[in-house]
Amino acid sequence: MLSLAAASLSPSDITRLMVALAVLLGVSRVLGELARRFKQPAVLGEILAGVLLGPTVLGYISPELMEWVFPSSEGEAGRIALDGFIVIATTLLLLVVGLEVDLSTVRRQGKATAFVSLMGVLLPFGLGFALAFGLPGVLGAGERGEAAPLAFAIFVGIALSITALPVIAKVLMDLNLAKSDLGMLVISSAMVNDLVGWIGFAVVLALLPSGATSGHQGSVFTTIALTLIFLLVMITIGRWMCHKALPYIQSRWSWPGGVLGFVSVVALGCAAVTEHLGIHSIFGAFIAGVALGDSPRLRERTRETIHQFVTNFFAPIFFASIGLRINFVSSFDPVSVAIVLAVAFVGKTGGCYLGAKFAGMSQKESLATAFGMTCQGAVGIILGQLAYAAGLISEELLVAVVIMALATSLFAGPAMQAVLKMKTKLRLADIVADRNILIHLDAVTVPDAIREIAQRAGEITGLSAGEIALAAIKREEVMHTGLPGGLAVPHARLKGLNKPCMVIGRSIIGVDFDSQDGEPAHLICLILTPEEDPGTQIEWLAAFARTFQDHAMLVRALSAETPTEFRAELNLADSEEQH
Amino acid sequence: MLSLAAASLSPSDITRLMVALAVLLGVSRVLGELARRFKQPAVLGEILAGVLLGPTVLGYISPELMEWVFPSSEGEAGRIALDGFIVIATTLLLLVVGLEVDLSTVRRQGKATAFVSLMGVLLPFGLGFALAFGLPGVLGAGERGEAAPLAFAIFVGIALSITALPVIAKVLMDLNLAKSDLGMLVISSAMVNDLVGWIGFAVVLALLPSGATSGHQGSVFTTIALTLIFLLVMITIGRWMCHKALPYIQSRWSWPGGVLGFVSVVALGCAAVTEHLGIHSIFGAFIAGVALGDSPRLRERTRETIHQFVTNFFAPIFFASIGLRINFVSSFDPVSVAIVLAVAFVGKTGGCYLGAKFAGMSQKESLATAFGMTCQGAVGIILGQLAYAAGLISEELLVAVVIMALATSLFAGPAMQAVLKMKTKLRLADIVADRNILIHLDAVTVPDAIREIAQRAGEITGLSAGEIALAAIKREEVMHTGLPGGLAVPHARLKGLNKPCMVIGRSIIGVDFDSQDGEPAHLICLILTPEEDPGTQIEWLAAFARTFQDHAMLVRALSAETPTEFRAELNLADSEEQH
Repeated sequence: MLSLAAASLSPSDITRLMVALAVLLGVSRVLGELARRFKQPAVLGEILAGVLLGPTVLGYISPELMEWVFPSSEGEAGRIALDGFIVIATTLLLLVVGLEVDLSTVRRQGKATAFVSLMGVLLPFGLGFALAFGLPGVLGAGERGEAAPLAFAIFVGIALSITALPVIAKVLMDLNLAKSDLGMLVISSAMVNDLVGWIGFAVVLALLPSGATSGHQGSVFTTIALTLIFLLVMITIGRWMCHKALPYIQSRWSWPGGVLGFVSVVALGCAAVTEHLGIHSIFGAFIAGVALGDSPRLRERTRETIHQFVTNFFAPIFFASIGLRINFVSSFDPVSVAIVLAVAFVGKTGGCYLGAKFAGMSQKESLATAFGMTCQGAVGIILGQLAYAAGLISEELLVAVVIMALATSLFAGPAMQAVLKMKTKLRLADIVADRNILIHLDAVTVPDAIREIAQRAGEITGLSAGEIALAAIKREEVMHTGLPGGLAVPHARLKGLNKPCMVIGRSIIGVDFDSQDGEPAHLICLILTPEEDPGTQIEWLAAFARTFQDHAMLVRALSAETPTEFRAELNLADSEEQH
Repeated sequence: MLSLAAASLSPSDITRLMVALAVLLGVSRVLGELARRFKQPAVLGEILAGVLLGPTVLGYISPELMEWVFPSSEGEAGRIALDGFIVIATTLLLLVVGLEVDLSTVRRQGKATAFVSLMGVLLPFGLGFALAFGLPGVLGAGERGEAAPLAFAIFVGIALSITALPVIAKVLMDLNLAKSDLGMLVISSAMVNDLVGWIGFAVVLALLPSGATSGHQGSVFTTIALTLIFLLVMITIGRWMCHKALPYIQSRWSWPGGVLGFVSVVALGCAAVTEHLGIHSIFGAFIAGVALGDSPRLRERTRETIHQFVTNFFAPIFFASIGLRINFVSSFDPVSVAIVLAVAFVGKTGGCYLGAKFAGMSQKESLATAFGMTCQGAVGIILGQLAYAAGLISEELLVAVVIMALATSLFAGPAMQAVLKMKTKLRLADIVADRNILIHLDAVTVPDAIREIAQRAGEITGLSAGEIALAAIKREEVMHTGLPGGLAVPHARLKGLNKPCMVIGRSIIGVDFDSQDGEPAHLICLILTPEEDPGTQIEWLAAFARTFQDHAMLVRALSAETPTEFRAELNLADSEEQH
């Protein structure tokens, strides 16, 4: 291709393309890191980078410079090459979003997830739909949105009811709650939410009066029918084929090249199919991610590699590019922003709170779940951007959706934390006695390790060791509890248990609990709580993770030669923390 | 950008772009894995993928299908987007090539490197230059190459004298020789070679009669002068600034996102500068890689992450794209192929052999070095492709260069192995006695660990422990000897030593020898050899690496409680290997 690159891209085009990418990536990374420094999601800084580089700021100061770096005339080669790169970046980003959806976890979670996700979608969707359909003048429809009020109203409903899985997962991880029961409920509800939202959005695109977006020549119903068939095939046959192929590729091909290549090819292929069907290419990439990510064969470490690969290079460029064509000052409409914010917030928290209550959760847990689910983050922004690109919504409404998504993302973490009012002064040394520590585990597999620790837990609590092990292993099958940095936190809620019990088992060689960083777990902390005590599991789990996330502490704990020495280290760590 | 994507890229363009990338990546990954299965470099399969998908095979069977997937008309948006992506892929690939050049290692290697790399460049360059300048009709010059016979002759000289660092590094790793003295000599000579080759190529581009490739309006001398200034600034001030910035970013920014972003931005920025100067963008990316990679602050694991990120996604697409516009059957000219092969092989092996002999190496080592340096691999192909793109060489000569590069890559590994005639039946259990094993190291840093092991080595050999430690630590400063999978192989050649000595130290917690996979070393094997015995170091080092590259063996060795138990495991491993 390069052989004729001189013909299709001039040196000046290439120079500008390199400058554009360097500037987009550089500014968005710097602002992303700044956001993280203030404990905010990186996407906030990345979007801000686009605002700075686009018409809002740079275009206001020097329109010539902006035009040189980011050419805007439609036929220009530099423009086309940059647009092409961004389309590819978006496709890979949605692949990663899809990979985080784990259908089997959702299925096994059962009732609570169904309630929370259903109510969490229905209420905000209903409010948004009613508002957009009843009062279309209030929120700004785009050119093609005006011609298709039904599509417009469905879109507004979806945009207000989506939960951003990647952002909320990050929030839960920061709170050390990702592997707790509450964390898993929030995550699996958000998964269902995402899935419903994206399928709905595909229908919206099909409902639009056909125009430039439709590659496929056919009626609305043909498009919807074909999309559903594609979806069904991917979730059944496609998923089955991925499950068969993944173990082979992961074990026989080069690592991680083989798996990265395979996943990218499946995503690009599915993207081509959906683009051809007349809905957006990224829907295909998302579904490819769901089909692949669902596989228990896709190891956590593989997932993490793909994740890093995409979120550190492609995602910042995509998020920064949003601001390039939008003026956030001239298109800022306080009324739209206020309405979108209010409806999204009330609908989402209200719906999820009611759902959690119906599912039988406590007041405190229901509220924490509701606040966690409010978080819109990246997914809401991607949807808004696509709807704007398709001419469905006005620039004003896009700005309102972006602001709403950012605001809810900033809100979710602190609100959850405030509701859970986590005790930070919990002392591990007070929880565990010498006999709650197994200094040398023989086991090398997860079930064996749990059985070995459950044996001791049985002696302490007086319950049957077999039943304890069974409950913890069953929980492990839903989703492994390995944490980065050599930790694992298997847990179970047990009938007949009087008070909570923690037993820590140590393995020098390590047991593979499938943690994100691929490290085996050296400290395995089994947490047993009574069924009627929802709070302790979260607090203990967070305290354990907090204590050992300091690597020096882990090393010291691994060097201890007796349970008493181990507890002495704990004591020291606890008192250090208080200073 | 997507907001107007409908205008600059139609859904049909996007569909074809996705299909093109999926096909390029998919076919090249599959063939790359197949090549690996037959112990060949992956690049062989990746180039073959392009041959299959381009005019040579697919275009012969169905020109329409090829034209649909890979549109060739110059103004077409799909074509421009694909070309743009491939330009970005090439830029990132050259960044990785540059990252592997470590100037400080080269400097510290001294005399031997200077001889080998100098002779290894001069002889093949001279032969190639003389041939191309004296008999320009024999090798095919391109349209612009005919107008600039000097540039053409210099290019041919460079193309024949380059050594492919990435490929030879892989070959040495497969032979478990990457961390031996011989391996380091080959690698540092190849680095010098690469650097000289690329700078020469920049000069060639500047010498070309100005045309489409020149973005900058100026004379040949201005271009060369500006290029040299850019080079000088990057290697001094730029390098110094990268060294200051890297530790900050690696420790304070998110990992690996911060470092990945920083490195990409520097590379894209430098690419933009050189493209603007009128030489190719990838020269800038290469120099950026050299400035960054030279830093001792750039951890091996960071380097590895960038490496995977680029070689598994971007590189296969680039290599496959070469075949897309070239017909390997109709442009196959047996005379060109034979001449290029013969000159490259004779010139390169002859030059390097003489250089190694002058530097005082043994017959066997000189021959092994010469065969290792023959390897042309990916870099020769990239250069050839660029020269063809610039109109410097004919399609026939490009085909000859590609075939020569592949042939020498296939040859290097087996030839080195044959020359070194490595004993595969060496038994570790025979080399080490109980007192050569330290079952529990206290040290947690590299110098302390070496000192602790040297203490025992001093007792065994009767030499001063301090001198042993000093020699091994000095060697470690040139390049760390950590191997993937928890191993390290510090070594030294000592005056006054009667016979070789191996002492193995075990650390359960691990000592960080900066290995590629970021894992700390659990088994640290100090190898001491007499100065006049060049062969044993290589054999012992390979035997140790081979024994413990089996993870189960490492785990068993870590569980042994006494030196005798440790040796029993070694014995078992040795006898297993013989079956």
